[in-house]
Amino acid sequence: MESLRILAENFGRLEGVGKKTATRMAFSVLEWDREDVESFAKAILDAKEKIHLCPICQNLTDKDVCPICADPERDHSLICVVTDARAVMAMEKVREFRGVYHVLHGMISPMNGITPEQLKIRELLLRIEEGNVDEVIVATNPTVEGEATAMYLSKLLRPIGVRVTRLAYGVPVGADLEYADEITLFRALEGRREV
Amino acid sequence: MESLRILAENFGRLEGVGKKTATRMAFSVLEWDREDVESFAKAILDAKEKIHLCPICQNLTDKDVCPICADPERDHSLICVVTDARAVMAMEKVREFRGVYHVLHGMISPMNGITPEQLKIRELLLRIEEGNVDEVIVATNPTVEGEATAMYLSKLLRPIGVRVTRLAYGVPVGADLEYADEITLFRALEGRREV
Repeated sequence: MESLRILAENFGRLEGVGKKTATRMAFSVLEWDREDVESFAKAILDAKEKIHLCPICQNLTDKDVCPICADPERDHSLICVVTDARAVMAMEKVREFRGVYHVLHGMISPMNGITPEQLKIRELLLRIEEGNVDEVIVATNPTVEGEATAMYLSKLLRPIGVRVTRLAYGVPVGADLEYADEITLFRALEGRREV
Repeated sequence: MESLRILAENFGRLEGVGKKTATRMAFSVLEWDREDVESFAKAILDAKEKIHLCPICQNLTDKDVCPICADPERDHSLICVVTDARAVMAMEKVREFRGVYHVLHGMISPMNGITPEQLKIRELLLRIEEGNVDEVIVATNPTVEGEATAMYLSKLLRPIGVRVTRLAYGVPVGADLEYADEITLFRALEGRREV
């Protein structure tokens, strides 16, 4: 069944989905009503069409400027740099962070051929050059790539006179920020240190 | 982001996908190129449109009659009754079974309100009434529901003079047939016993 195989292949391209899981998913969809299947296909197209990057922080949004960047109550002099949009969601759950974000869309990883040029670092520099930025908290994951990215940013930003800090090692080493609980993230934020 | 939430909800409706995984998947799709996203939506609609149930064995197929039912080389007097289409795929990997299949699309489960009437048992009876069926191998999962379904089928079919067998307990108890390896399935098939 060619169409089933193609569907499973598509599921298999999702992050973290193996071949067996992808096949299960394809079978699962076939059990749905036609109406639900059509809604699913529409939801995929809709999301891709409506969601784009915020021109300021590079986070995903369906608005011209994302609600966080557009919020005058937030502290725009404090930028928390994260790897991806999911990390923003995780940080926002803490409810303690009143600054704004910058989403890099990846981490520096020579092993995987990801260089600083492929990340949204240029956009971060532009924001800082516009002034009014006092501190950049580098909240990349506490992994080798995350640390490498933090070091790179520190070396790049400190000469411009920006305070660069790193989340404290309250975050379990080697883990993904997305899976940290609120309390751990809060403590990591409180204990942040200069890089 | 309403459209992201809706997309995540749709992923969450897939079998075995929790809320967190569903959100990851939704974010994952947004990272794809527009072209790939469109192919994904198309694959979903295509699969649902082209794949239907084989009128004989009730397995999923994109042909009028599925390739197994249409194969004159297979032994049509030997029917292996399974829970779902994935179990057929698992059985076919053994390459030792030369009979045909019948897909019930579920198991009897009073706990979950699933009665024999909701399964493709009527269609199985019709096949048997047409004659030429010597043996029915009940290859439902070795779980409570699987056993209940096997007992039900045995009581229903034996009076009609059909030999009813059950896969041997080579299959690990409590597991899903889909995850059994080929050798285990082969042994289970060899050691099948009368119910």
